[in-house]
Amino acid sequence: MVRKADAGLQEERRRQILDAALACFRRSGFRGASMAEICQEAGMSAGHLYHYFPGKEAIVEALCARDLGLCLAVLTEAQSAPAFAEVLVARGAEEITAAIGTNSPTFIEIIAESARNPRVAAILTGFQREMEAMLAGGLRAAQAQGRLPLALDADAAAAEISLIVDGYFARCAANPDYDATGGRVHLRRLLARALRPDPAPG
Amino acid sequence: MVRKADAGLQEERRRQILDAALACFRRSGFRGASMAEICQEAGMSAGHLYHYFPGKEAIVEALCARDLGLCLAVLTEAQSAPAFAEVLVARGAEEITAAIGTNSPTFIEIIAESARNPRVAAILTGFQREMEAMLAGGLRAAQAQGRLPLALDADAAAAEISLIVDGYFARCAANPDYDATGGRVHLRRLLARALRPDPAPG
Repeated sequence: MVRKADAGLQEERRRQILDAALACFRRSGFRGASMAEICQEAGMSAGHLYHYFPGKEAIVEALCARDLGLCLAVLTEAQSAPAFAEVLVARGAEEITAAIGTNSPTFIEIIAESARNPRVAAILTGFQREMEAMLAGGLRAAQAQGRLPLALDADAAAAEISLIVDGYFARCAANPDYDATGGRVHLRRLLARALRPDPAPG
Repeated sequence: MVRKADAGLQEERRRQILDAALACFRRSGFRGASMAEICQEAGMSAGHLYHYFPGKEAIVEALCARDLGLCLAVLTEAQSAPAFAEVLVARGAEEITAAIGTNSPTFIEIIAESARNPRVAAILTGFQREMEAMLAGGLRAAQAQGRLPLALDADAAAAEISLIVDGYFARCAANPDYDATGGRVHLRRLLARALRPDPAPG
């Protein structure tokens, strides 16, 4: 019981730090925000913070892991829903738009950072690979159950969904009104289309 | 004749400066690159450079104008080709992948910059509006000529194409191998799909 409570507390602390880090990145930029600023925002000593995250790269890793967890939760929900594709699109779009909030400039800055920071580049490349593999696996499982057309190329669909999500983040970062002015509708349409096989040529 | 030659020279100088600016942004980041660095890279005096571009924001505006010009050229080419959608997708993807080269991190940084620089935000928002209006106009013209299905929502398709292009840039910025490892194929598929009306529901 003690161990379980400890684990819960640690999880809560990590969540707290990630939220504080996102607030600092929003305010000062990913590059501009220092670990000292994150300590202050989280109300923690440097020793305490470094125990959880040895640097900003570790924070990026944790943000990626959180997104992978969200993706898995949505896939699991869709697997047990009556209409796989519809639920994947609706719940996926919901989680994507909720994850954005005011964070899209931060996500885009982290992508930009990868051009000059090989450790961030390695984390993002690994994240994209895992995300696409998880998505493709989920789509193939749905195909095996007859809940998605076999004609759909699961790997291509996963890669396309990943591109669509990045595009949505970039559009939100470039224009804070984007989500409200139809962006969410375009996101859902693009996701729905990525889950339909292309018509046969000719 | 003198005026025409002058205009050509001015155009050439502007092109030279834009190329120098992109090289500096690549090397030092959009925020890190100074006008002095751009002067040096372009081999021009500060007075000369400021005559053409009073600041980095004016350079962003010129980069946007260049992209609008490319978009118009591709639309014009597609209008006079036998197969409108096929040519728009093929030539569009060609120009998009050529425009990227090693510049995707710069484009993504400029998007990130808009969160903290209202002038850049205004330039990008205006650019996106003009780009989507131009695209939607081109699609509607093709529909009027019976070269695109009337069932296609031209405004939605233009907004979706814009999202897809941003996503492609973001994926290339996050992973330099993206374009070569299938990214270009996904880009073409997504663009082609954006030009097909969705199947009627039910």
